[in-house]
Amino acid sequence: MTKRQIPGYSYGTAEVPKSHVSMQEAAESQTSAGFTEEDHRFLRLAGEVLADQTKQIVEHWRAGIIAGIPHLAPHSRTPEGDPIPEYLAKSNLRFEQWILDTCLRPDDQDWIDYQQEIALRHTSAKKNQVDGVQSTAFVPLRDLIAFVAIMNQTIRPYLAAKGNSAEEAEGMHRAWSKSIQLQLALWAGTYAGRNEW
Amino acid sequence: MTKRQIPGYSYGTAEVPKSHVSMQEAAESQTSAGFTEEDHRFLRLAGEVLADQTKQIVEHWRAGIIAGIPHLAPHSRTPEGDPIPEYLAKSNLRFEQWILDTCLRPDDQDWIDYQQEIALRHTSAKKNQVDGVQSTAFVPLRDLIAFVAIMNQTIRPYLAAKGNSAEEAEGMHRAWSKSIQLQLALWAGTYAGRNEW
Repeated sequence: MTKRQIPGYSYGTAEVPKSHVSMQEAAESQTSAGFTEEDHRFLRLAGEVLADQTKQIVEHWRAGIIAGIPHLAPHSRTPEGDPIPEYLAKSNLRFEQWILDTCLRPDDQDWIDYQQEIALRHTSAKKNQVDGVQSTAFVPLRDLIAFVAIMNQTIRPYLAAKGNSAEEAEGMHRAWSKSIQLQLALWAGTYAGRNEW
Repeated sequence: MTKRQIPGYSYGTAEVPKSHVSMQEAAESQTSAGFTEEDHRFLRLAGEVLADQTKQIVEHWRAGIIAGIPHLAPHSRTPEGDPIPEYLAKSNLRFEQWILDTCLRPDDQDWIDYQQEIALRHTSAKKNQVDGVQSTAFVPLRDLIAFVAIMNQTIRPYLAAKGNSAEEAEGMHRAWSKSIQLQLALWAGTYAGRNEW
């Protein structure tokens, strides 16, 4: 699945700690999100459709949107506000791979574990560590949650870019949106702890 | 806006505590969600389109979906699992009004304050209180986040039910989804506190 070696990408390896979320809790969250077999099929289709567009999509999000939002741009810069091109390049590669993982990875223990790892890498527990950089201490949970709305809006044309029918494009978008929402539900627990999570 | 007296509905009154979220933080979250003037217009249109469908929509969510999910159904039942019809009826009315508030209320201090109140009423701080009932102590944050995916999917046909163009229906859906995501971002802070929120 990963065609190149991605710096800091440790999906499915022994480096990734076991999630505090159980398979049962993850399955219940899937039910709460209305995830169906059809959604799984549409996600796999989305993975095929997006496969050669991930670089462009992440560029769109990072350079096209995040870089222009004053309270989001600092998260890939130094505390003084200077760019860290190498950090951005590496995390862009992981961001690209995340799009494919969202679409193509089975929702097994590795998947749950890596959801926790992704969340941790946005909190002060692990942000900046894998790349050995100095930047903001964490990305606020509220911005993660809110930015999903932008990702869901802007992914739409990429899902329609390969000539699939309008129904298929909508089905892929629905499945994509559900998967992200499910991931957010898991990430929130890593940020907030298990109290009333 | 509220055509009838809704039990326990206190939007804009002195009973609602001031939110811990500032107007500045809420505005930044709007930016993180990509909220535009066009979205505000589409939300108002959605309010008109949904106005006489809210009872049906909430029935769809509550009786049609939540009641059939074993880990969600208990939240409107007694600890023994018995229905509490009066509780359900009252909270359904508030749920219906929430749909209209999502579409039609201006995003001012009252709106921010009531977002906190809504979240509190799903946590052990305030769940069950306004109706004086005994039920589950709280709704887990993860289920709130995940269930948004179901609401976003199932609201779609209702947005298209009044003969608007496909573009308008999609615009309304996009604006709706952004608003819910923004509300989730605010609710998460009430659940989780301000640490890395």
